[in-house]
Amino acid sequence: MKAEIISIGTELLLGQIVNTNAAYLSRKLAELGIDLYYQTTIGDNSQRLVQTLRKSLIRSDIILLTGGLGPTVDDITMEAVANLIGKPLILNRAILKDIKRYFLSRGFKPPHGNDRQARVPEGAKCLRNKVGTAPGLIIEHLGKVIICLPGPPREMAPLFEDGVVKYIRKRWGRGAVIRTRTIKTVGLPESRVNTIVKDLLELTPPTTVGIYAKLREVHLVIMAKANTEKAASSAIAKVEKKIVLRLGKHIFGYDDETLEDIVGWKLIDKKLTIAVAESCTGGLISSRLTDASGSSKYFIMGAVPYANEVKIKHVGVSADTLKRYGAVSRQVALEMARGIRSIMGVDIAIAVTGIAGPTGGTPRKPVGLVYIALVAEKRRIVREFRFDGSRKDIKWQTSQAALDIIRLNV
Amino acid sequence: MKAEIISIGTELLLGQIVNTNAAYLSRKLAELGIDLYYQTTIGDNSQRLVQTLRKSLIRSDIILLTGGLGPTVDDITMEAVANLIGKPLILNRAILKDIKRYFLSRGFKPPHGNDRQARVPEGAKCLRNKVGTAPGLIIEHLGKVIICLPGPPREMAPLFEDGVVKYIRKRWGRGAVIRTRTIKTVGLPESRVNTIVKDLLELTPPTTVGIYAKLREVHLVIMAKANTEKAASSAIAKVEKKIVLRLGKHIFGYDDETLEDIVGWKLIDKKLTIAVAESCTGGLISSRLTDASGSSKYFIMGAVPYANEVKIKHVGVSADTLKRYGAVSRQVALEMARGIRSIMGVDIAIAVTGIAGPTGGTPRKPVGLVYIALVAEKRRIVREFRFDGSRKDIKWQTSQAALDIIRLNV
Repeated sequence: MKAEIISIGTELLLGQIVNTNAAYLSRKLAELGIDLYYQTTIGDNSQRLVQTLRKSLIRSDIILLTGGLGPTVDDITMEAVANLIGKPLILNRAILKDIKRYFLSRGFKPPHGNDRQARVPEGAKCLRNKVGTAPGLIIEHLGKVIICLPGPPREMAPLFEDGVVKYIRKRWGRGAVIRTRTIKTVGLPESRVNTIVKDLLELTPPTTVGIYAKLREVHLVIMAKANTEKAASSAIAKVEKKIVLRLGKHIFGYDDETLEDIVGWKLIDKKLTIAVAESCTGGLISSRLTDASGSSKYFIMGAVPYANEVKIKHVGVSADTLKRYGAVSRQVALEMARGIRSIMGVDIAIAVTGIAGPTGGTPRKPVGLVYIALVAEKRRIVREFRFDGSRKDIKWQTSQAALDIIRLNV
Repeated sequence: MKAEIISIGTELLLGQIVNTNAAYLSRKLAELGIDLYYQTTIGDNSQRLVQTLRKSLIRSDIILLTGGLGPTVDDITMEAVANLIGKPLILNRAILKDIKRYFLSRGFKPPHGNDRQARVPEGAKCLRNKVGTAPGLIIEHLGKVIICLPGPPREMAPLFEDGVVKYIRKRWGRGAVIRTRTIKTVGLPESRVNTIVKDLLELTPPTTVGIYAKLREVHLVIMAKANTEKAASSAIAKVEKKIVLRLGKHIFGYDDETLEDIVGWKLIDKKLTIAVAESCTGGLISSRLTDASGSSKYFIMGAVPYANEVKIKHVGVSADTLKRYGAVSRQVALEMARGIRSIMGVDIAIAVTGIAGPTGGTPRKPVGLVYIALVAEKRRIVREFRFDGSRKDIKWQTSQAALDIIRLNV
C-alpha cells in the first residue's frame, strides 16, 4: 500500500505559508502503516494538477490531495479530478444544505459562490465538514483511491481523523504497522551523538534509526515496520535499550515530551517550588516552565530584572558585585539566584545573565556569553556558556541549558 | 526561467518535522522573479532521488535540493547527483580544511566521518558553510543548474542568501520581477477581513491578494509581477492604499515586522519605559517584548507572579481584592498593573490574569477567560477576553491582545 500527498495552493509555492498539512498527513499515514514516498506541492493550476495526478496514479495506490476546494475560481481540485476520471460534476444536495446551514448558524446569509463547493465528481463519497464549507471526498478509480481534503488544517484534520481513517481501515484492514519512537537528548552536539550510535544509524529496514538536530537538542527516531503492533514495539524496544544504555543521562524524554514537561514533572514529583530570575532570556524560561498545565504546583514566581537597578533593588544583587564584575558574570548570576531564592522562599532558584545580541558584545564578553546559576538547599551551581546564532537562537539555547541544569540537579 | 524545489529527508515523509525550507526558498525565488511550479519531498533514497531529479531536469531550469548533505550513510545527495550527471566524487581539500576548522574552533576533535562531506561531484562550485560542515553546491549540467543546500534551515539560509542569489543574478541578470507586500492585522477575525477586502481578493494576475489567518493575526499578501521593480512596486502601492484605507488601525505592521517589534519601536520613539506583571501568560509577553535588540531601552522589569501570595507581596494586589473577586478578575488585573507601575516607577504597566487551561475553568470563569489591564499616567484600561484553543494557544492569543492594547494606547 503506497500513498502520496499532493498539496495544492499557490500560496505554498510562493512560500507565504508553511506546509503543515503534509507533515500531519505523513505522520498519520505512518501510524496507519502506509508507506509514503512522495509529497508534491503545486499551484492552483488545473493542467499541472491533472498531470501530477496522472503520474501519481501510476506509482501510488492512495493519493491524498489537500487544498483547492474553496468557493473561488482559484479552487480547481474538484474540476481537475472530475476531468481526470472522466466523470461530470453533480450537485450534491446534502452538501449544499450543509453549506447553507453553516452560514446561517453563524449569523451570515449564505453567499452565492458556494454552490460551487457542492458540485462534486459523480460517484464521490462525501465527508461532511463540521467546521467549514468544503466537503472531503473519497473517490475510487481503477483500483486506486483519490482523497480530497480542504486546505485549512483545522478543517482537514477532523475530516481525516473521522472519515478517512475509518475508510482506510474498513477497506484495507490494518495493514502492516509502522511505529516510531523518538528519543530526545540535550547537551551533546549532533556529531557526538552520531558517533555514539553510528552503527544503529546504519541499520537497514524494517527497523531504522534517524538522527535529527534541533537547537541544543538531538532526536533519535526509531522506526519499525511489522505485521503486528506487538512485533513493531518489540523491534523498537531492542534498539531503544541500546540507545538508552549508551546515551544515559543525556536522554531527557521521549516522543512528544518537551524538556519543560520533564522538569515540571520532576518538580511536582519531589514537591519542590521554583523561582526564576532571567535577564537575557527575557521571560522565556518562565514561559516554558508554565506551558505545562499544573505548573502552579511548582512555579511560584518569575522575574525579568532587565535593568541593573532592578537586579539590585528587586533580586538581591549587590551594587558592589555589579560594579566589580559587570552584569554578565558568574558572580551576578549567583547573587541573582540566591537573592530570588531568599526573597521568594522557594526550594530552587535559577538565574540567567548574558548577552543575547546582536549588539552588546565586546571582545572580552562576546555575544552569546551566558551565565546560568542554580541554587537549592544543598546545591550551588554556576555554569558559563558560549552560544551562537541570532538573538532568538541564543535565548532559546540558554533556556534549554537552564532547564537541563534544573533537570539534572533536582 | 523555471525552478523546482526537491526536499530530501525521510523525517519529512514521516512528518517528524515541518518543511520550512520549501517555504523559505519559494519566497526567495519569487523575490528573484523566478517561477516555481513544483515542490517535491522524497526520502533518503538514492534511487528515488535520481528518478525525481531526472524528471525535474526535463521540466525545470533550476533545481534546488535541500538535505542529504550530512556525514552519515543516510546522506545520499552528493552521490545521487554525481551519479546522475556522470561525474566522480572528488575530495575538495578547501572544504575538508573548513570542516576540520569548524570542529577545532568549537573545542571538538574532528570526527572521522566528515571526509564524506568534502567529497563533491567533479566540477561543482562549492559555497562555504560558516555555521555547519556541509558545503553548498552549484552544478551546471546541460544548460540546467542543480543547487544543493544543507537541510538545517540555519545553514541553508545564509548559503542561499550569500552564494546562490549572487550566482543567479550573475548568470541570468534580473528577470521579471515578482514583489510581495505583506500587510499584518490584529483584532479582526479572518471572516471579517475577508468581507472588507473581498473584491481585492478576487483580483486576477499579475496583481493578486491572498489572505492568511494566523492565531489572532490576519495577513494580506499583495503579489505583483512586472518587468521592472518600479512597475511591481507601483502595482502593489495601488492595492495597498485601498487596504490601508479600509483596515486602518487594525493594521499593525508590514512584511517581517512582528507586533512586538512595533510596540518596541513606539516605546523607544516616545521614550517610555514599561513593566509587565503577567500571570497566565507565564513570561511570554516579557519574552516577546525582549526579543527585539534594544529592548533594554524600554523594558525595565517583567514579573510572573503565579501564586496568589506573590501577587499580594510583590505586585501590590490587596488580599481583600483577591478574596472578594478572585485572582481572575478586572479588579486584580488593575491592581497588578497599578502595583507594578508604582513599584518599578515605569511609564506604562501591563498586567494579565486569566485561565490558560486546560484545567482550572468553572462555568462562571471558563478556560480562556482573561483580563488585561494597562495603566499609564493618563490611561487606565481593563479588558476582558474569552479565548479558545490549547493552553499554548490561549497564552499566545493573550500575549497578542496585550501587545495590541499597548500598541493602541502608547
